[in-house]
This record gives sequence, structure tokens and C-alpha cells, in this order.
Amino acid sequence: MTPEFLRPRPHVAGLHAYTPGLQPTEQGWVKLNTNECPYPPSPAVAEALRREIGADGAALRLYPQPTSARLREVVARAHGLQPGQVCIGNGSDDLLNLLVRVFCSPAAAAGLTVPSYSLYPVLVAIQDGAPEPIPFERDLRLPVGRILASRAPVFFLTSPNAPTGVGFSREEIEAVLRGYQGVLVVDEAYAPFAREDAVGLLARYPNLVVIRTLSKAHALAGIRVGYALADPRVIDLLDRVRDSYNVSRLSQAAAIAALEDPGYYAGIIARIRGTRDRFSADLRDRRGWFTYPSQANFIFTEPRGADGATGLEVARSAYDFLCGRKVLVRHFPSHALTASFLRISVGTDGEMSTLSDTLNAWQSSLRA
Amino acid sequence: MTPEFLRPRPHVAGLHAYTPGLQPTEQGWVKLNTNECPYPPSPAVAEALRREIGADGAALRLYPQPTSARLREVVARAHGLQPGQVCIGNGSDDLLNLLVRVFCSPAAAAGLTVPSYSLYPVLVAIQDGAPEPIPFERDLRLPVGRILASRAPVFFLTSPNAPTGVGFSREEIEAVLRGYQGVLVVDEAYAPFAREDAVGLLARYPNLVVIRTLSKAHALAGIRVGYALADPRVIDLLDRVRDSYNVSRLSQAAAIAALEDPGYYAGIIARIRGTRDRFSADLRDRRGWFTYPSQANFIFTEPRGADGATGLEVARSAYDFLCGRKVLVRHFPSHALTASFLRISVGTDGEMSTLSDTLNAWQSSLRA
Repeated sequence: MTPEFLRPRPHVAGLHAYTPGLQPTEQGWVKLNTNECPYPPSPAVAEALRREIGADGAALRLYPQPTSARLREVVARAHGLQPGQVCIGNGSDDLLNLLVRVFCSPAAAAGLTVPSYSLYPVLVAIQDGAPEPIPFERDLRLPVGRILASRAPVFFLTSPNAPTGVGFSREEIEAVLRGYQGVLVVDEAYAPFAREDAVGLLARYPNLVVIRTLSKAHALAGIRVGYALADPRVIDLLDRVRDSYNVSRLSQAAAIAALEDPGYYAGIIARIRGTRDRFSADLRDRRGWFTYPSQANFIFTEPRGADGATGLEVARSAYDFLCGRKVLVRHFPSHALTASFLRISVGTDGEMSTLSDTLNAWQSSLRA
Repeated sequence: MTPEFLRPRPHVAGLHAYTPGLQPTEQGWVKLNTNECPYPPSPAVAEALRREIGADGAALRLYPQPTSARLREVVARAHGLQPGQVCIGNGSDDLLNLLVRVFCSPAAAAGLTVPSYSLYPVLVAIQDGAPEPIPFERDLRLPVGRILASRAPVFFLTSPNAPTGVGFSREEIEAVLRGYQGVLVVDEAYAPFAREDAVGLLARYPNLVVIRTLSKAHALAGIRVGYALADPRVIDLLDRVRDSYNVSRLSQAAAIAALEDPGYYAGIIARIRGTRDRFSADLRDRRGWFTYPSQANFIFTEPRGADGATGLEVARSAYDFLCGRKVLVRHFPSHALTASFLRISVGTDGEMSTLSDTLNAWQSSLRA
């Protein structure tokens, strides 16, 4: 019961926090549940951090550069853009939140596709806004017509999509940009693993915001850095609602070092794509599991029970069996298009081989 | 001009971002403008960071613990509280923002005293809320009666106050808590430098939120960690609107190491208080400048021109002269109670001696 002294805004009492994937603190897990990179970040990152820390951490007594100015420059250069087209966030979630605060209110809905990143409706709910969900069909094609019909001032799209891994073509994104009357946020957390991205469209479409993160391809989920690429007028709005010291000194230093070593990342991205494609083919061809073609660093697959059955209970059985053997994947039981699937982050070849063995054991256990 | 595709919430177009103190990137400044600690953090901080980074930064590929659980425990232990009474923020500004989002809306004002930390009205404006400012008189005594008359669901109080450095007694704070009908946020960023604090009142007043930061006394402005201490029902509301990964792995590790070394910090806090009291006495007794008694790590003093005059122009003249000699302090020209003053962060004895010499030179320049 809420005591009398507490008078939160009425909608806050009904909020449920976003449920992040499990982060077990003990050792021994094969952790394939939150799409982290299985390889360490560029060696330049540890070096840059050690330099910033110095002998005694003295630099840490000073506030960070408030706008992350140097990092904006490095990001801009990496994408062939101007620093004024970049805003840096405490993880990309920070930027998604700022976009909601700028554009969304009870009177103005925020559009989003379903299923996609489940944080969007949580952020809209915190804002007491009205989410306008547009469902995918089982083919997971982008519902361009329905998005164009939306009157929402902002629309969130994950591309490649999560948790499905399905990518959308630049032509499809452009079709939305041409007709949509608001700001289209293309959340490209997984784009470094995809065939194409929307960054090249920024020059022609001032209503496009591209969101990137260093948490996935750059192996830096632990430092919390993401960024928005957009028209300077949109960046200016984000800066007005952004916390003035939102990114720590160490996070700025780490992100700069990572982005200045694209060669290293090209190497690990190629490895992850290779593992992904081999493992997807194995699920599809050897096990006969329906598996969406993935453009991300995870695989969305529909496990089959002993009798070939699929469904929520089969997926849950596989999830629980894996969990019992300390192999952690992700199951989203609450949506019809996801309930019969598991989302598996692409790990090292060794981790995928452990996963494969454990899936074999699960299938054997069903026949026993 | 806002292009047609941009439809921000109407109030956003009128927002002005918070103006942080200057953070010069070049060397050679005596930086006494943002109340940073002049001494490095505990040596345990650099050690803990090096441990977390390891040889190759591999741990950084993983997300942080979402609730900063271990840090909550360490904070709770440091204050004799339970972990359920603690929420960790990306700097204390993060927590102030969460409090605004929980309690403040256009229909519900947020109370605050003026002058105090100038971020509060900025956060309220971002929320499209209605700030309810209660002015101090020149004696800077806490206007208890006027606060008790407020119907705002949340009230922000800085204690010791900024930018004045004046502390409020526990009895005054308790008088507010006994009668005020909402949540009283006591922002204790500077409390480690003060004679007393409000933490002991948490046991009896569930409508109290105490905010602390590691940016000042703990010499860690660069890592962005602050925390809220409150009734678990208030903490639960903050967690509902908090970003799920708001504090990086490195920031959590650094904060834990700092809070586990209270002996080191007792030493530097004593030094800063000693420097503060000596320098304040010098300003007051030798220069004859009106100087509020400071309970913080900064000094609020009213410079006198050659003829003994005070005022905005005198303060600006001193500020500009110092700035020209690369000594950076802070001037708040836009409020009647602050315009004739300078706020000077307490630096090392060497820095204060440079400041003193430069103030002498300024005074000589006026007589010339």
C-alpha cells in the first residue's frame, strides 16, 4: 500500500521496470542470453583506460567533458558525418529515453513494431505516453503501409530486428522515410553484423535518427556508450534534455579507443558472422528447426520436441534444460510470434559446440 | 526554425540546457570552479579499476550488474542502513531526474529554494513541470514556515546549500520533515564537509530522501556515481523509472573501492576543511570581505573593490581578472543574492596561495 506521504504521478504506481536478461555473477555459465560479444574489446581500449587512470586515478577527480566532444568527433569521422550530427548517450538506452522525452506525451503516441526491443514500450510507459504498436506477421516483413499510416510524431524500429535477427533493406527503410510524417528512429544496435544499414540515408532524410551502441559489436556492454546520428536540429533537442555529464571519463576514453581501431573489429565481426551462419545452417539443415535468417549476432530458432512438435512448452523445455546445464539463452514467452522460439547469442565456436551438445542431450532426454 | 517533420513536445522547444561549469581541456588552469576534490581518490580505486580491466578488458564485454547490487550493499553498510534503502545513479543528477519523473508533472509542482543547485529547475522544466521557488533572505536561514505551506508532492533542498555553503541544522530539517506533506529531498552532495547530516533522520521519517555523490568528497566526479537513501517504497519507485544498466562496470568497481576506504577520505576531508577555514578567515579578517560560514568544499565570498564597493560589477571584475590569469572560479550573476559573490572551490594550499596572490594583483590593479 502506498503511504499517504507518497504522491507519485498516478501512472508510476502501475509501471513495471524493464526486465533485463539474467547477469549471473558466479562463474561457469555459457552466457548466450544478452547478445554480448564473445571476444574481448580492442587491446587499445585497455591501454586507453590505463592511461586515463594513470598511477593514482587523479584524473578521475575531474568531471568528464560534458558533451563528450572528442568522442562525437571520432564517431562523426567513423561514419563520414559532422560532429553536430552526433549525440553520445550512457548506453543507447539513454538516447532512446531522451527521444521519448522529446517527442512522446499522453497526447502524442509513439509508434513501434511488435515484437521488437521490449524497452520501447517501457520508456513510453514511464513517460505516461501512448504506445502505438504495429504487429509483424509471421513473415516478419516490415509493415511499411501501416507505419506510413501512423500519425505518431516518433516511430521506433529495430533494424536488424530483435529478437528475430531479421534485417530490413535500405529500400524498405527509405520507403518509410519518404512517406512518414514524423521522426523515424532506426535502432541499429546490430547493424555491424548486417549486410546494410541506414546511415547513408541521413544525408537525404532529416527525419531519420540512427541509434548505435558499443555494447554489441564493440564488446563494450560494460562501459555503457551508445550514440545517435541525426540532423543537427534533432541532436540539439536531445542535448536539451540530456544530463550534462551523462558519460564518464573512462567510458569516453574507452569508446574513443575502440572506434579508432576498426581493423580489430572487422576481424571479430567476421568471426561472429561465420559462427552465426554455420550454427544457423546446422539448426536449420541438421536439426530441421525453423530459424529466421539472422543479420545480427544472435539466432532466433524454433526448437522441435521429440515428435517434431513446436510451441511455447517445447521452447520452455529446451530453455529449462539448457539453464540446468548452465547454458543461458533467452525465451520470450509472452508474444505469439516469439513464444515457441529461443534467442541464442552467437558465442565462440567452443561455446556454440557446448550449446550444441547440450541441445543434443535435451533431445535425447525427450526420447528417454 | 523547426522543420515540419519535427514535432517535439511543445515545451521542449523552449528548454535551455543546464550550464555546467567550464571544463577547460588544456593544462595550466588553477581550476576552482566546479567543487572537485583537489586530491586524488583512494589508491584502492585505481587498483580496483586495473583489476576490473584485467590484461585485455575482457570483462567489459559483459553488461554491468543491473541494480549495482554489491555497491548498494557497500553504501548501506557505510550508513548503517539496509540495501533496500539504497538506489545507485549515474551521478546524483540521475537520481534527481528520476525523482522529478516520479513526482513532478504539469499538474504537480516541485518545490525548491532559491538560490540552490540550479539543475533542479532545469529538470523540472524538462518534465514540463511547475517549479515552486521559495526564496532565501540574505541571512540564508531555512524558510521552514514557507516550505511547510507548500503543497508540492516533492521538495528539493541542498544541505549544505549551494552555491552559498551554508549548512542547515538537523533540527531545522526535522522541523520540515515533521510538517511537510510530501517527499523532502535533501541533496547532501557536500555533507561530508559539514558538521552534521540528515541520514540519522531516515529511521523516523519515511518522507525523507537523502542524495549523496562520489563527485566531491570522494574525488570521483569523472566516474559519475551518486546514490539515494530512502524508505524502500521510495526506492522501489525510483527503480521503476531507472535505466536498467545506468552504472557502468568500471564506475561500480571504483565506487565500491572508494567507499571501502573511509580512512583515506577522512584524511583528505580534514585537509580540505582546514584549508577552507583558513582561507575563509583570511578573506573575512584580512581582506574584510563578507564571507558566509562554509560547511562545504567551497567558499562564497563578496569581493570588495578598491573603494570598498561590492556588487555585480565588482564580482565580475574579480572573476574576469582571475580568468585572465588562468584561475577559474564561479560567478552567478543572475540572482540578487549571488550576483555580488564569487564561489571558490577549495583547492590545495598551493592553489589557494596562487588564488590569494592573484586576488592581491586584482586589488592592486584597481588602485592603479
